[in-house]
Amino acid sequence: MTISENRQFRPLPVPSVSIGGYWGDWQDAVCDETAKTLLDRCVSARMLEQINPDVPSPGVVLPIMNWGGTTQMFWDSDMAKSIETIAYSLYRKPNAELERRADEIIDMYAKLQDADGYLNSFFQRIKPEWKWSNLRDFHELYCAGHMIEAAVAYYQATGKRKFMDVMSRMADYCVAKFGYGPGQMRGYCGHEEIELALVRLARETGNQSYMDLAKFFVDERGQAPNFFMEEAKAFGRDPKGWQKNILEYSQSHAPVREQSKVVGHAVRAMYLYSAMADLATEYNDDSLTATLETLWADLTQKQMYVTGGIGPAHSNEGFTDYYDLPNDTAYAETCASVGLVFWASRMLGRGPKRLYADTMEQALYNGAITGLAMDGKTFFYDNPLESTGKHHRWIWHPCPCCPPNIARLVTSLGSYIYQVADDEIAVHLYAQSEARVELANGAKFTLTQKTDYPWSGDIAIEIAPEQSATFAVSLRIPQWARAAKLCVNGQPIVLFDLGADGYVRIEREWAKGDVIQLTLPLEPRAVRAHPYVRQNAGRVAIMRGPLVYCMEGADNGVGLNSVLLGNGLGKAQTAVIPDLRGAIAIDLPVLKESAGAWGNALYAEAEAATEAVNARLVPYHLWDNRAPGEMLVWMRNA
Amino acid sequence: MTISENRQFRPLPVPSVSIGGYWGDWQDAVCDETAKTLLDRCVSARMLEQINPDVPSPGVVLPIMNWGGTTQMFWDSDMAKSIETIAYSLYRKPNAELERRADEIIDMYAKLQDADGYLNSFFQRIKPEWKWSNLRDFHELYCAGHMIEAAVAYYQATGKRKFMDVMSRMADYCVAKFGYGPGQMRGYCGHEEIELALVRLARETGNQSYMDLAKFFVDERGQAPNFFMEEAKAFGRDPKGWQKNILEYSQSHAPVREQSKVVGHAVRAMYLYSAMADLATEYNDDSLTATLETLWADLTQKQMYVTGGIGPAHSNEGFTDYYDLPNDTAYAETCASVGLVFWASRMLGRGPKRLYADTMEQALYNGAITGLAMDGKTFFYDNPLESTGKHHRWIWHPCPCCPPNIARLVTSLGSYIYQVADDEIAVHLYAQSEARVELANGAKFTLTQKTDYPWSGDIAIEIAPEQSATFAVSLRIPQWARAAKLCVNGQPIVLFDLGADGYVRIEREWAKGDVIQLTLPLEPRAVRAHPYVRQNAGRVAIMRGPLVYCMEGADNGVGLNSVLLGNGLGKAQTAVIPDLRGAIAIDLPVLKESAGAWGNALYAEAEAATEAVNARLVPYHLWDNRAPGEMLVWMRNA
Repeated sequence: MTISENRQFRPLPVPSVSIGGYWGDWQDAVCDETAKTLLDRCVSARMLEQINPDVPSPGVVLPIMNWGGTTQMFWDSDMAKSIETIAYSLYRKPNAELERRADEIIDMYAKLQDADGYLNSFFQRIKPEWKWSNLRDFHELYCAGHMIEAAVAYYQATGKRKFMDVMSRMADYCVAKFGYGPGQMRGYCGHEEIELALVRLARETGNQSYMDLAKFFVDERGQAPNFFMEEAKAFGRDPKGWQKNILEYSQSHAPVREQSKVVGHAVRAMYLYSAMADLATEYNDDSLTATLETLWADLTQKQMYVTGGIGPAHSNEGFTDYYDLPNDTAYAETCASVGLVFWASRMLGRGPKRLYADTMEQALYNGAITGLAMDGKTFFYDNPLESTGKHHRWIWHPCPCCPPNIARLVTSLGSYIYQVADDEIAVHLYAQSEARVELANGAKFTLTQKTDYPWSGDIAIEIAPEQSATFAVSLRIPQWARAAKLCVNGQPIVLFDLGADGYVRIEREWAKGDVIQLTLPLEPRAVRAHPYVRQNAGRVAIMRGPLVYCMEGADNGVGLNSVLLGNGLGKAQTAVIPDLRGAIAIDLPVLKESAGAWGNALYAEAEAATEAVNARLVPYHLWDNRAPGEMLVWMRNA
Repeated sequence: MTISENRQFRPLPVPSVSIGGYWGDWQDAVCDETAKTLLDRCVSARMLEQINPDVPSPGVVLPIMNWGGTTQMFWDSDMAKSIETIAYSLYRKPNAELERRADEIIDMYAKLQDADGYLNSFFQRIKPEWKWSNLRDFHELYCAGHMIEAAVAYYQATGKRKFMDVMSRMADYCVAKFGYGPGQMRGYCGHEEIELALVRLARETGNQSYMDLAKFFVDERGQAPNFFMEEAKAFGRDPKGWQKNILEYSQSHAPVREQSKVVGHAVRAMYLYSAMADLATEYNDDSLTATLETLWADLTQKQMYVTGGIGPAHSNEGFTDYYDLPNDTAYAETCASVGLVFWASRMLGRGPKRLYADTMEQALYNGAITGLAMDGKTFFYDNPLESTGKHHRWIWHPCPCCPPNIARLVTSLGSYIYQVADDEIAVHLYAQSEARVELANGAKFTLTQKTDYPWSGDIAIEIAPEQSATFAVSLRIPQWARAAKLCVNGQPIVLFDLGADGYVRIEREWAKGDVIQLTLPLEPRAVRAHPYVRQNAGRVAIMRGPLVYCMEGADNGVGLNSVLLGNGLGKAQTAVIPDLRGAIAIDLPVLKESAGAWGNALYAEAEAATEAVNARLVPYHLWDNRAPGEMLVWMRNA
C-alpha cells in the first residue's frame, strides 16, 4: 500500500463531533457557566459601549501603558473569543438567550463597520488617529483575526452568515490594504493571529485571496528592511522599543524560514507557527515544514515544561534561556499552552506523527485545561508547577485573554480529536465521542469512541459506514504507552513494528459493526528532566497516561518539599476522588522529613529524621479545585 | 568569681586596633582603591554640586520615583559613608590628597549649614519646600545619621573636630525639633539610622541629650496614633502608601517593644535593632533586650540565608515568609548583612554570647564582604547563592548605598573584633591584629593575635600589660568548633564545661609574656537547612570554619546542579588558590550526571548516568573574582 507524501489532513468541523465522558463534562461546564460568564464580564468591562455605535464612546477606560497602548485595544479579540465559545456551546446546548445576545453584538459590529470594510471598535471609536500607526504594538490585525475565527465558528454552529460576511469584508479590506503592490503596506501584525484566521476563512469560504494574504503576512515577516523598525522611525518612535529584544519578542527579527530558535512572547510564537503549519499543509511547502521541525525540536527539547507549559518568564510573557524552567515562578500562560495545542494540531496536517500529537495531548491535559476551574467559573492566567499556597484562579483579569481561549478550545475539541485526508481518518486523541465523517473518496461513516479515558486506557472504536467502504483509520500509540494492545474485530494486531510516526494505520474495507479495541496501559511512571534543568535536579514528576500529577496540601498537609519518593512508585495504588469529578488519584508510600524532630535551628549538620507516610497525588490540571494549600509537581526522588 | 549582670561592653575605637593578615589585605584594598573610588564616583554622580553652596544647584538629577522622591535624597548619606571610609583608611594609610578632599567637603557642609543647625543638602538646595514633609519616605534624618557617624569617625581618625561640631549642631537642632514637648514633632525617620548614630555621638561627646533623643525615636516608633499615618493625612497623601504593608516596611506598625517578627525592609530593620541594642546596653533596658532576643530568634531561625544574607525579596528589599529563602533570586543586600553585623555586635553589649558573635562572623565573612571585589573596585548590591553566570559586581549603582557600607565596615573592623567592659576584654573575632587597651579598672595592655585565620585555625594571643594587672579575657569558642583546644602559657584549659554563652572567660593577673594558644579545627562540614526551606531540600552547603563554600564555573565547568556530593566530604582535601589571595579551596570527589549521555530528550524515564569527577569548592565570598560562570552554594547531596 502506498501512502501519498502530500496528504493534507484538516480538522473535522466542530459540529461533526459529539463529545461525552471526561471532555463532555468540561464542555458542559463551559456551556453551563463559562460561556455566559465570559459575555457578562466583557459587558461589565464596558466592551459593549466601545462596540455599539448607538451609545457614546466610553473613551480610554484602561490606562495607557509603558508601550504606548492600552489592553483596551484587545477588547474586540476578547469579545470575539467569547462569541466563538458561544458558537461552539450553542451547538452542544442550544441557548436562545446567549444566541440572542451574540446576534445583538454581531449586529453592532455590522453597523459599526466602515463602508470600506474596516472594522475595529477601538480604532474607530476611541483613537481613530492611531489607525495603522503601530502594527508592532497595537494588535489591530490581531483583533481582526480573532473576529474572523469567531465569525467562521458562528457560521458553522448556527448557519447564520452575517458575521462571516462582515469579516469577509474586513478580510477583503486587508487584501487590498496589504501586499507587494504599489500603495499597499508591506506590514504585518506584531501579535500574530490574523494569519491562521485567514486560513480558516479561506477554508470555509473557498476564497484563495485570504489564503494568499496569510501567506504574504508569513513570508514578509522579518524581511529586511524590517517593517517594525521602519514604522517606528516613520512615526518618530525609538525603534529599540519598550521591550528588550523587541523584534524577537514578536518573532520578526529574521525571515521566518531563517528562524531556528523559539524566542519572544510565547503566545505570539505559537500563533505564528500555527499559521506556518497551516500554510505548509495548504501549499505543501517543504521549506516551512523544515523550519517548523527545527523550531519544534527547539521548543520541546529545550524550553517546555513537563506540563506542556511554555514561556517561563513574566517579563516578556515568553522564552528565556535553554533549560530555564523555574517551577514556582513559572509564567506558562494558559494561552501559550492553548497555542501549543493549536500548533501541534496543525503540524499533523501533513500526516499523523505522534511526535506532535503526544505533545498536543500533554499540553491540552496539563498546560491548557488547568486554566479553567472545574466549575467553569474561574481561570488561571499563569500556571506554576509549585505553589506555597498563594496561587489561585481569578474571577477576571485586566488582560482577559486566557478565559475565552481555553473555553473555545474545550468546546471545539472535536476538531483536535479527529483529522481527515482524502481517504483516511486520523484519531489523534482518545475521548468518548461520535464523529460523523464524509471523506473526499466518498466514504461516509460514523466513528464512535467508547472510553473512560484519561482515567481508563480501554478504548473501543466502532466504525459504522452507511455502506461498506475502503479507507484508512490511523490510531496514535502514545510514546508512553509501552505494551499497548490492539485488536480489530477481536483479532490482535502486532504493534512492535509501528512506524517511526507512532501511528497504526489500518486500511481496509470497513463495514457496519467493525470494532477496534485499543488498550493503553496507564501504569504511573516517574519522569526525569534533562540534567541541565537545574530546577528539577534530583526530582521526578509522576505521570499516568497523558496526565502530570502533583501533590496538594489538601491531601498531604504542609512541607511538600520534605517528601521523598524513594521506591514508593512500585507500591502505588489508584483510587477514585469523588470531589474531583471521579478523577483517579495515585496513592503511594513515601518518606517525609520531620520538621518536628528537626528542632528550631535553621541550619544544622545532622540529616533530618524521616518518617514513613502515605502521599496522595492528583492530576495537576485539577489542582486548586479544593481547599487552598501547597502544590508540587516535581517531587524529590530520594 | 562573680560576674556583674549589668556589664556594659562597648567596641574599641577603630584607631585602637591595627589589623594584618586576611583582614589587613581587605583593608589595604579599601585604602588603596575603594576609598578614592567612592569619592570619585560620588563626584561623578554630581553630589558635590548639591553640597557646595558656592556653585549653582544641579536640580533634580535622578528621576522622581513612584514613592514621590528620588534616590538623590540619599546623597548626603552616600557621601557621609564615603567620608567615614576615608576616615578609617587615613588612620591605616595616611593619604594627604584624600584627607584634603574630605576636608574640602566638610568645609562645604559647614558653609551650607543653616544658622539653626539644620543640614541636608537635598532639602536645602533642591527641594526646600519638602523639608520635614515626609519623614516616612524622604530619609531626612537617615542622612543626618550617616553624617553624624562620619563626623565621629573623622574626629577619631584625624583629631579634627570641625565635622563633629557641625553635626553636633544638627543634633542639637534635632533635640529641639523632636520630642514630647509642646511644638515639638513626635515623629521619627522611615529609614532608621539616626538612632544608632546619636548613640555614637553621645558616647564620643558625653552629651546625654543625644542618647535621650535616640531613645525618644525608638520609644515613639509605632505608637498610636501612628505618626506616618497622621503625617500622610496632614499632607494629603494616601496613608496606604506606595508599598504593600507600608508600616511593616519601616518597622513602625507597632511599638518596638511589641514587635516579635522581623518584617519589612531588611536594612531598616537591622539599623533599628542595632539602636535598640545600644540603648538596651546604655540604659540596661531589659524590656528592649527581651524584645531583641525574640526578634533575633525570629531572624536567625526562620529568615536568614546560610551566608548571613537577609531579606530575600527585591520587591521590598526585605523579608517575606518564614523559610522562604530562594537562592537564585536572593536579594540579600550587602547592606543588610552589614547591618546584621552591626546588630550582632551590639547584642554583645550586655555580655559575650556566641549566639550573636557566631552570626556576626557568619554575616561578615559570607553576607557582607562578598559585596566587595578582591581588588576593592567593584561591588555586589544583591547576593544570590546560585547564579547561571549572569550576576557580576557593579562599577556603581543608582542607589550606591552598599559600596561605602561594606568599605566602612572593613576599615573599622577592629571595633567588631574587640569589646571592652570595666574589667574585661572580649575577643569576638579571630584575626591577625594588635589591640591597645585601657580598661576602666586601670589595666593597660596590648593584646596581639597572631593567626592566619580564617585559612588556619591556629591562634596565638599575647597579652602584654604595661604592669601586671587583673582582668578577664573572654574568648569565643564558635559553635562549629567542636574539639577546640585552649592553652594558657602552655597549660591546657578544659573546654567541656563552657557556659551556655559559648565563651571561655579567663580572669587572672596577666603579665607580660602571657600567651593563650587557641586551636579551632577547620574540618569541612556539610550543613543542612530546616526541612521547611523548600529551596534547599535534599541539598547541603559545605562550610569550613566560618566560611560558606561554593562551586564556581571557573573550576567546575557548566551544570553545577548535576553534581552530587555523595560521600565525597570524607575524602576532601584542601589546597591553596594563589589567584584568590591564598584562599583555601576544598577539593573532593563527586558524581556528576552526564548531559552528554542523556541525549536530546527534555524528559525521560531513565535516570541520568553519572560519572566520577573531582569538584573544587571555593569560599563563597570570593566568587566572581575570576572568570565569569555558574555558581552554586547549596549542592545536591545524593
